[in-house]
Amino acid sequence: MLDDENPEAQLDRAFLALADPVRRRLIARLSRGPATVNELAEPFSMTKQGVSKHIQVLEAAGLITRTRDGQRRPCHLDPAALEALTAWIDTHRLVAERQFRRLDDVLETMKRDTMKAGEK
Amino acid sequence: MLDDENPEAQLDRAFLALADPVRRRLIARLSRGPATVNELAEPFSMTKQGVSKHIQVLEAAGLITRTRDGQRRPCHLDPAALEALTAWIDTHRLVAERQFRRLDDVLETMKRDTMKAGEK
Repeated sequence: MLDDENPEAQLDRAFLALADPVRRRLIARLSRGPATVNELAEPFSMTKQGVSKHIQVLEAAGLITRTRDGQRRPCHLDPAALEALTAWIDTHRLVAERQFRRLDDVLETMKRDTMKAGEK
Repeated sequence: MLDDENPEAQLDRAFLALADPVRRRLIARLSRGPATVNELAEPFSMTKQGVSKHIQVLEAAGLITRTRDGQRRPCHLDPAALEALTAWIDTHRLVAERQFRRLDDVLETMKRDTMKAGEK
């Protein structure tokens, strides 16, 4: 990601960048390999300007980088930046799932204790 | 998630909901167990109204649900909704990583071929 100073601002920008169907389609396309703005504009039947704007948002969010290859300036997806996002989500998802399992265990124990008490 | 009709709109709302540091802190708190708006407002030194607004965004995004427990209306995190987001990201991340590995293999083969040609 671009700016190492504020990880919260990085997460803000990255999640905001994903909150758009066109940008998600651009990410899906770039996951299969680098492409220039011209190459991206064609299959999306979008103007070069429209694609450029979205690419700028993705670039500012650190999700893609651009290199120079002669006259071409291909966009590359950064899988590590995507991984940082799944890492954030998964941390909290796994904590929540563990809590659910713990609750299930407590309920199961209570049920067993009630059945045992009934047998006496 | 709330609305099954349009998965793209669901992803828009969910990623947008995560693009805010306060809402991410609320998710982190709710991952450890359900809490009411009052209980959430206290440690965050926020007004009840402020927390309520963020909770509404998270609820509309399908990331949390609210139940009724007498007078209390606790908020619960939905781990399955978070999983849908990591699933989307990981699909494209893994495709991208596979492409990188394939490129590495091609470069490795080219390097070996060049070295072999040099030996002749």
